[in-house]
Amino acid sequence: MLKLASVTSSLALVLAAALPCAAADGARDMLGYTASSAAAEVALEQRFDAALDPAHLREWLRQMSSQPNHLGSPHDKANADFVLQQFKDWGWDAHIETFDVLYATPTERVLELVAPTSFKATLDEPAIAEDSTSSVREHMLPPFNVYSADGDVTAELVYVNYGVPEDYKELERRGISVKGKIAIARYGQSWRGIKPKVAQEHGAIGCIIYSDPRDDGYFQGDAYPQGPFRSEQGAQRGSVADIPVYSGDPLTPGVGATKDAKRLKREDAPDLLKIPVLPISWGDALPLLKAMAGPVAPEHWRGALPITYHLGPGPAKVHLKLAFDWKLTPAYDVVATLRGGEHPDQWVLRGNHRDAWVFGASDPLSGQVALLEEARVLGGMTKNGWKPKRSIVYLSWDGEEPGLLGSTEWAETHADELKKKAVLYVNSDNNGRGFLEMGGSHSLEHVLDQIAGGITDPETGVSVLQRRRARFAVIGSEKDANPQQKEMAKAALDMQRDFPIEALGSGSDYTPFLQHLGIASVDFGYGGEDRSGDYHSVYDSFDHYVRFGDPKFEYGIALAKTVAHTVLRFADADVLPLRAGNFADTVAHYDEELHKLDDSERETAEKTNRLLADKAYQLAADPTQTLLPPPAPQAVPFLNFAPLDNAVARLQSSAAAFDRAYAAQLQADRPPDPAAAQKIDTLLQGLEQTLTQTAGLPGRAWYEHMIYAPGLYTGYGVKTLPGVREAIEQKHWDVAEKYVARVSTALDAYSARLDQARSLMPER
Amino acid sequence: MLKLASVTSSLALVLAAALPCAAADGARDMLGYTASSAAAEVALEQRFDAALDPAHLREWLRQMSSQPNHLGSPHDKANADFVLQQFKDWGWDAHIETFDVLYATPTERVLELVAPTSFKATLDEPAIAEDSTSSVREHMLPPFNVYSADGDVTAELVYVNYGVPEDYKELERRGISVKGKIAIARYGQSWRGIKPKVAQEHGAIGCIIYSDPRDDGYFQGDAYPQGPFRSEQGAQRGSVADIPVYSGDPLTPGVGATKDAKRLKREDAPDLLKIPVLPISWGDALPLLKAMAGPVAPEHWRGALPITYHLGPGPAKVHLKLAFDWKLTPAYDVVATLRGGEHPDQWVLRGNHRDAWVFGASDPLSGQVALLEEARVLGGMTKNGWKPKRSIVYLSWDGEEPGLLGSTEWAETHADELKKKAVLYVNSDNNGRGFLEMGGSHSLEHVLDQIAGGITDPETGVSVLQRRRARFAVIGSEKDANPQQKEMAKAALDMQRDFPIEALGSGSDYTPFLQHLGIASVDFGYGGEDRSGDYHSVYDSFDHYVRFGDPKFEYGIALAKTVAHTVLRFADADVLPLRAGNFADTVAHYDEELHKLDDSERETAEKTNRLLADKAYQLAADPTQTLLPPPAPQAVPFLNFAPLDNAVARLQSSAAAFDRAYAAQLQADRPPDPAAAQKIDTLLQGLEQTLTQTAGLPGRAWYEHMIYAPGLYTGYGVKTLPGVREAIEQKHWDVAEKYVARVSTALDAYSARLDQARSLMPER
Repeated sequence: MLKLASVTSSLALVLAAALPCAAADGARDMLGYTASSAAAEVALEQRFDAALDPAHLREWLRQMSSQPNHLGSPHDKANADFVLQQFKDWGWDAHIETFDVLYATPTERVLELVAPTSFKATLDEPAIAEDSTSSVREHMLPPFNVYSADGDVTAELVYVNYGVPEDYKELERRGISVKGKIAIARYGQSWRGIKPKVAQEHGAIGCIIYSDPRDDGYFQGDAYPQGPFRSEQGAQRGSVADIPVYSGDPLTPGVGATKDAKRLKREDAPDLLKIPVLPISWGDALPLLKAMAGPVAPEHWRGALPITYHLGPGPAKVHLKLAFDWKLTPAYDVVATLRGGEHPDQWVLRGNHRDAWVFGASDPLSGQVALLEEARVLGGMTKNGWKPKRSIVYLSWDGEEPGLLGSTEWAETHADELKKKAVLYVNSDNNGRGFLEMGGSHSLEHVLDQIAGGITDPETGVSVLQRRRARFAVIGSEKDANPQQKEMAKAALDMQRDFPIEALGSGSDYTPFLQHLGIASVDFGYGGEDRSGDYHSVYDSFDHYVRFGDPKFEYGIALAKTVAHTVLRFADADVLPLRAGNFADTVAHYDEELHKLDDSERETAEKTNRLLADKAYQLAADPTQTLLPPPAPQAVPFLNFAPLDNAVARLQSSAAAFDRAYAAQLQADRPPDPAAAQKIDTLLQGLEQTLTQTAGLPGRAWYEHMIYAPGLYTGYGVKTLPGVREAIEQKHWDVAEKYVARVSTALDAYSARLDQARSLMPER
Repeated sequence: MLKLASVTSSLALVLAAALPCAAADGARDMLGYTASSAAAEVALEQRFDAALDPAHLREWLRQMSSQPNHLGSPHDKANADFVLQQFKDWGWDAHIETFDVLYATPTERVLELVAPTSFKATLDEPAIAEDSTSSVREHMLPPFNVYSADGDVTAELVYVNYGVPEDYKELERRGISVKGKIAIARYGQSWRGIKPKVAQEHGAIGCIIYSDPRDDGYFQGDAYPQGPFRSEQGAQRGSVADIPVYSGDPLTPGVGATKDAKRLKREDAPDLLKIPVLPISWGDALPLLKAMAGPVAPEHWRGALPITYHLGPGPAKVHLKLAFDWKLTPAYDVVATLRGGEHPDQWVLRGNHRDAWVFGASDPLSGQVALLEEARVLGGMTKNGWKPKRSIVYLSWDGEEPGLLGSTEWAETHADELKKKAVLYVNSDNNGRGFLEMGGSHSLEHVLDQIAGGITDPETGVSVLQRRRARFAVIGSEKDANPQQKEMAKAALDMQRDFPIEALGSGSDYTPFLQHLGIASVDFGYGGEDRSGDYHSVYDSFDHYVRFGDPKFEYGIALAKTVAHTVLRFADADVLPLRAGNFADTVAHYDEELHKLDDSERETAEKTNRLLADKAYQLAADPTQTLLPPPAPQAVPFLNFAPLDNAVARLQSSAAAFDRAYAAQLQADRPPDPAAAQKIDTLLQGLEQTLTQTAGLPGRAWYEHMIYAPGLYTGYGVKTLPGVREAIEQKHWDVAEKYVARVSTALDAYSARLDQARSLMPER
C-alpha cells in the first residue's frame, strides 16, 4: 500500500506540475454566474470538498453491505431507516415514500441435462473463506432472473450467441430454429431482457443465460478470489423485464404504484415474459454446451470455454423448472429536501439506488455512500448558515435492480409537480477507481465540462476532465480503433471545444426522469481501472470492493465532489447554467448520422442484391453444410430528411443567438434583473420537456423523449433520434418519415423556447 | 456419401444452368494463340481432361503416405524411385539429381517445468485407433524444429504472443524483457522461424512454440479424430531456418549443394539459430502457461486455453534440452523432361515437393499425386503423337520442408541455364477441397484468368474463376471486412477486368525461381473447405485426408487440370502468353500504397508525438500497473517517390503499347512470322528477370527480385516493392530512397524490353 501511495503521489506531482490545474480558472466564465457569484461558488465548493472524509464511505459501505439487501429484504428496510435517520440528523427534511410493486422471488429452480448424458446444475455461488459475507446465507437470493415466467419445460438446446435479433438471422441461414427449443445465450452485448424476449418471439419455450469467461471471467483476468473476475460458479442475477417498453412496476405502467393504483393483471402486463429464463455460471453451462453438436458456431460467436462451440439443436436436452412467489412488495424511497431560499419551487434532484441483488458493495452501495457523504456535508453547510437558492432533493431509491421501480414509481406519482419544478436530475449508481464517465442531456455539456475541469483526479493530479480526454485520445489512437473511437479521439485532442458527453440509453434511475418526463439529466460514475466480474454476484462484497474497486475510497470522494458541484452549480446559479449550442451541434451530428444510415442501408441492400443476383452466396458456400443466402433485402428509399434538416438549422441559429445573449447578460458583473431571471429560469426549466411528445416512440408510448432512448433491442445502449433511427434499421419507412416530422416539431418547440428566453434577455 | 453427391449435383445443375460455362469461350482471344491454334489447344485440353482418373490419385496417395517420408528417410527414397520409374514408363526422359544438404534430426528432447511445480512434457503425438498410419512409428520424426541449435537451458518463461517484432514493443512498454529467459510463443501470424530469430535478437536463451487451440484446435472446430482440427497432443513440426535471408541448404547460399561445393562452417551459416527452439502441443503448453503470473496479456494476445494469459516472467521456470544429429543428407530431386518439338530450349517448368514431415498426405502428397497424374496423361498424349512446341520439365522436389532445399539447390546449380531457357515455373504444394488460390508474377494474370475461366468447379458446376470471385465478393461484403478485403470484393464484382492474383511471399518451392532467378512463376492450390489442424503433424495422413481433405479427389483432378492447362498454354503458344498491362497496373497500385504508407507513418508519428506531448499515455494508464508510453517516434520525412512514379508511368505506357501490338499480331488468324515470334519469345523469356538486381534486397542479396519477396519479419507473407516498403516500415529513409532508385531502374529495364519486343511486332 505504501509503495503504491508514493508512486501515485510522485506521478501526481510530476503531472500536475506539467499542467496547470483548472481550479483557479473555475471562476472565470462560470456558466450561469456573474463574476462575483462565481467567486463565491468556488469558495463554497472548496468548503464542501474540504469536509469530505473517505473513512465515512468505508464505514457505511461495510455496514450497508453486511447483509443481503435486495428489494423486500429486512436489511434493505434497515438501510432505508438508517439513511432516513442520517438525513434527519444532518438537517434535511426527510421522509420515506412507499410503493407496492410487483416482485417475484424463486421458490424452485431446477436445471438438468437429461440427454445425451446426465448432469444437474449447481445453481449456487458457494461461500469462500476469502470473502466474509459470502457465508451470510440467510435471506440471500440465489441466482435467478426476476420477471421470468414460471415454467417446467424439457427440450433440446440451441446456442444463440448473445440472443439479439441479428443472431437469429445467422441461425436462419443455417436452417436452425429455436421453435419448441430452449435457447442458451451468453451474457453481454445487450440488456439481458432482450435475450429471452427475442427467444420467445422466435418460439423458444425456455431460455438460459450464462456468463462466458470471455466476457467477465478468466479470459479478462484472474478469477476471484485471486483476482477480480467471475469464477467458475459465479452467476449474474438480474431483471428480464422489457425495460425498453417502460420501466418501473410491471402492473402500473405510467402511474405510480400507490396503494390505490389501478393495476394490470400479471398476465396482461406487456413487459413480462411468458417463458422461463434462468442465469447460470460457466461451470454449470460447460457440460450443456459440451453436449451440443450441429454446425460449428461462427467465429464471433465463440467464447473462451475450452470447447468447440456448436449451434445444436441438441443433442443436449435439458429440463428447466422454475417457480416463483409473486407478490406486491414495498419499495422504500427515502426523499430528503433542503428547501431553497430564493426559488424553493425549482428543484435540483440527485438520486442513487440503494437496493442490491445480494450485498451490493459496488452496485449500488459505492454510489449510495457517496450520496450520503454529500448529504452530510451539504447538511452541515446549512447548519453553518448557507442555504441553496433552489431546493435540493436527495433520493435513495429502492427497487432499481428489478427495473428502476422505486425511481419510476416516484417519478410517475409526482409527474405533474416534477414537470413544473424539476430543473435537473443527477444520477449515480456503482462507482470505482478510474476515469470519469458522464452522459446526459447535451444542454448540460458545457457546464459539466467546466465542473469536470475543476475536479482533481486522485491518482494523477490533473483534472478528471483532462484524464477523460487523455483516455479517449489514447483509445482512439490504437491501430484497431473503430470509427466512433477515432471520432472521440479527435474530439479529445480538440481543446477548442467541450469534450462530448455520452447520450443516455438506460440501465439506471435517470430513465423515468429524462426519457419519460423530459427532465434534463446527467449520470455520473468513475471506473475503468476497477474492471471485474462481480456484477450481480454474491461476490460483489465489501471484501471484493476494498481489494479491486476503490481501495482508498478516493474515487468515491471524487464522485461526491463531481455530483455535489453539479448540484450546487444548479442550486445557486444566477441563471440556470444551460448552453444550447452543444445540444444543437450534437443533434446536427445525429441528423448527419441518419442521412448516412439511410445511405449505407441502401448501399448494403444494393450490394446484397447484386451478390444474390450473381448467386455469389451459393457459390461461396460449402455445399456440404447449410448456409442459405440472406433474404433479398427490400429496396431502401431515399427518405425525406428535409423537415429535420431545416429544424436542425433553425435550432442551430436559435441556439447560437441564445448562447450569445445568455453570455452577455452575465458579464460585466451585473446580476441579471431578478424578475427576468426568474422568467428565464422558468422557460429553461421546461426546455428539455419540449423534446417530449405524449405519443412517445413507436410501440412504446411511455418513452416520450424524441432524442434519447434505450434501443428496443439493445436495452442498455442508446439510440439517438430513436423514432427515426430504429424505423430506418427496421425498414419501416413510413414510420421513419412520421418521426422525422415529430422530431422536427420537437426541435422547433425547443428553438421557440430558446427564442422566448432570449427575448427576455437584455440587449447588450 | 450418396446424399452429399445428390445435393452437390443438383446444386451444380441449378447453378450451371444459370451461368454459362466458359469452356466454349476459351478459344476466343486465347492469349498467345491465333484463332486456329486456340481451337486446337482447346481440343488438346479437353483430351487431357478426359483422361484424368481420381482413382490414381487415391491409390498413389495411400502408397506414398504409407510410411514416414521425410528428407533422408527410406520411404522418401522409395517414393523418389517410384516417381522416377513412373515417369520413365510414361515416356518422359527422367533422372534423379542428388544434392547433399545439411539436415538435423533430434537425438534428445527434454522439456520440463521445474518451478513452481513439476511437469514433464510428453512431446509426442500418440497413435490412435482411428488413424492407421499413426501407429507406424519406425522412422517417424518426433515433433521438433529443424535448424534449432543444440542447447541445455533453464530459465523463467516469458509469453511473447506470436513473437514478432511488434509483440516485443508491447513487452517493453510493460517493462518485460526476454533477456536470459525462455520465450514461449504461439504458432501463427508469421513464418515460424521469425519467432526464435526475434527472441534471440532480444537476448532470449531458448524458445518454445506451441499450437494454441485458437489458431488450429478446438476453437476452430472439433479436434481429431472427431473432426479435422488439432488435438490436445497434436504438434507442428517445421523448419526455423531464416528463409527471408536465403532459402536452400544453409551451408551453400547461392550455389548448388553438389558434392564438390564449397561449404560454410555450420557456426558461420547466417540463417541458423544460436538458441534451442522446440514446438509443442497445447496439452504440453497448458501447465507451463498456467504457472505464469505477472501482467495479464493484452486482449489480442489471448488464445483459447481456459486460463488467464499472463506475460511473466515466471514464476514458471523450465528446463529445455535439445540435441541433434547434424549431417549432410542426400536430397533426391526427380527431373523429367518432354522435349519440345519446335523450341526445345524454351522450358516450361512444373514442380511440387514430395518430402513430408511424417506421412504428408495433404502436405505435400495431395499435390504430388496431381503432378503424377498430369505427367501420366501428358506422357500418354506424346505416345499418341502429340509433342509440345516448347520443352516441359516436371520436378518432384525433395527437402522442401527443411527450407526449400531440393528446389533451391537445383535452381542454383542450373542458374545460368534456367535464366536463358526457363519461360515459366508452375508450383503446387498441398491441395484440398474448395476454392482456387493462385499467386505469382502479374504478367501472368491475364492468361491465368483465362485458364481459370475454363476449369469447371466440381461442386458447383461454374468455372473455378467464378467461384473464386464469388468467394472474395462475399468475404468483402461482411460487416467486419477490412479495407483490403473490401478492395478485393470490389475487384470481384468488376467483370470488366481480370480478377487479381496474389503476390507471392514464400513458403514453397517457387521462391528460388521467382525471387532469386527472376523466372516468371505461379503457385496454385485449391482449399478453404478443407480447413484443419493436421499441418506438419503425424495426423496429416491418408485417413485424415479422405475424411476431411478432398474425399472424392475431385479437387486433385481440378488441380491437375489447372496446372496442366497452364503448362500446355505456355508450351504450345504461338507467342508466350504474357500481358504487361496487368503487371503495370499492379505495380502502379503498389506505388500508390507506398505513398500512403509514407503518409500514414507520418500521421501516426505526429499523432503519437502529440499524445506524448500531452502526456496522454501516462494520464490514460493505470498507475498501479506498468505501461510506459511508447518511445517518441522520429519525424517521418516526405520521401522522393518521383523516380518511381515516373518509371511507373513509363511502364504503363510501354505496357499498353505492347499489349495492343501483341493482340494485333495474333488476330486475323495469321500466325506470326516464326523468326519474329522466336525473337519476341526470347525477349519475353527474360522479361521477369529485368526485375532482378544482383545487389538484391537490404541485408539479403540472395533475394534479387525488386517487386516481390517474403517479408524479413513475416517469412510467409509477401512484401511488395520490398526494398522500399520495408525501409519505410523500419524508418531507414536513405535505404528507402536508394531502393526507389533501384526499383525505378528495374521497371525501366522491363519497359525497355517491352518496347524492344513491340518493335519486333508488325504494325497493323
